[in-house]
Amino acid sequence: MKAITSRDNPLYKRLKALAGSTHQQRKSGQALLEGFHLASAWLDGGNQPEYCIVTDGALTHEEAQAIVARVDERRVVTLPDALFGQLSSVVHGVGMLLLVDTPEAVLPHRVQSTCVVLDGVQDAGNVGSILRSAAAAGIDKVFCTPGTAYVWSSKVLRSAMGAHFLLEVFENVEDETLTGMLAVPVVITDSHGAQAIDECDLTREVAWVFGNEGAGVSQVWRDAAAHRVTIPQPGGMESLNVAAAAAVCLFEQCRQRRRAR
Amino acid sequence: MKAITSRDNPLYKRLKALAGSTHQQRKSGQALLEGFHLASAWLDGGNQPEYCIVTDGALTHEEAQAIVARVDERRVVTLPDALFGQLSSVVHGVGMLLLVDTPEAVLPHRVQSTCVVLDGVQDAGNVGSILRSAAAAGIDKVFCTPGTAYVWSSKVLRSAMGAHFLLEVFENVEDETLTGMLAVPVVITDSHGAQAIDECDLTREVAWVFGNEGAGVSQVWRDAAAHRVTIPQPGGMESLNVAAAAAVCLFEQCRQRRRAR
Repeated sequence: MKAITSRDNPLYKRLKALAGSTHQQRKSGQALLEGFHLASAWLDGGNQPEYCIVTDGALTHEEAQAIVARVDERRVVTLPDALFGQLSSVVHGVGMLLLVDTPEAVLPHRVQSTCVVLDGVQDAGNVGSILRSAAAAGIDKVFCTPGTAYVWSSKVLRSAMGAHFLLEVFENVEDETLTGMLAVPVVITDSHGAQAIDECDLTREVAWVFGNEGAGVSQVWRDAAAHRVTIPQPGGMESLNVAAAAAVCLFEQCRQRRRAR
Repeated sequence: MKAITSRDNPLYKRLKALAGSTHQQRKSGQALLEGFHLASAWLDGGNQPEYCIVTDGALTHEEAQAIVARVDERRVVTLPDALFGQLSSVVHGVGMLLLVDTPEAVLPHRVQSTCVVLDGVQDAGNVGSILRSAAAAGIDKVFCTPGTAYVWSSKVLRSAMGAHFLLEVFENVEDETLTGMLAVPVVITDSHGAQAIDECDLTREVAWVFGNEGAGVSQVWRDAAAHRVTIPQPGGMESLNVAAAAAVCLFEQCRQRRRAR
């Protein structure tokens, strides 16, 4: 275990640059996993962090001790609260961060099972919530087109609650690459002239496409769609939040599959 | 139309205090509605704002002009971009805000139709998303217990996209008051030993209770529950985001009701 006490320490400076910038996180291929839950989920996947960063206060917690015990001792670094605070993305954090290399996902040649495509979903909270729903629904691959929020940012990580480690997530996949790869029909949600979601046969494998919060599903995916489904909404609102709509779609598919068995 | 150019103007100071503090918003019973969509939704309800605050730049947009035309001219105030920026809660806003009195909802004596109870839901984005789903599902009353995020805060307003104006939302309702009022069975979601949601008869009227992000549904509502339902999750995640779970529940009820007709 090593103690860092100066803000001029090179590792601290590196961590600070990373914590302050999603751009830097994306460029470096590294992410900061904050809190006990994400740290445990990472270690459960059989991974080690580059560093486990803790405050002295955190080390008095049993949960923190249990995590530290699973990390190679040379990779554990302690920080005073004031220095740690500048790395943290939450208000009352627990004082623990893992610095990790984000997994490099190798694009498959052909996708034959149910997957999710995030077509320019911009809000980090929405992206995280959809990853979490996808992992809960038993989906294993999520593809993100270039306009989508960076999935390994602190906010997406926090909102996805460890779903990243149950999924293969592919970043920055161009539309043409992806449409060429999908061997399953594309399903989009649409509010106009579409089929009610529970009247569409979802027991088969499909590629779910969820679009941008403002603009909806983009033209290339509208053109690629084999099915346009709608979630009938008896109230006066004209649409649902994209993460809410995604959850309804994915769990309607789960329901149909359960019924079909 | 009146132009404010000084940051010492009393109205500007009042707006700034309000913009910077959810506590102040709650205390004053006033809210700031930002953007064209919320402003239109407010006016569509037949309401007038106390003030409509716009930048000169915004006034060149047709959408802004259409909104300004619907507001009593004496209530329209222009601000320079720099002053407006300090009131705005979004990064690239459109330069329009309404200052409004939040509606005073009078508690009903008896609730006999489907409603939503937010039992300590803390995240503003989640509260907004659930309000939006509830309005889309045709629900008309949402009750918030004291630990729930303030529904008229800028973040909840933004996330709910106008759902506030389609719903009656009751703030700070004590659990005992609420349980005494409900004439419909209480349904909670639970991951252990509960009934699969599609096997529970949801064609009847119910009170949906959605709990805190970390702690789940509180004991008083567990005790009040007539039905505990679960959303079967074939994947490895242990739970869904509360707003995602709420959407699945509310639209499963819509589906069952559609089928029953």
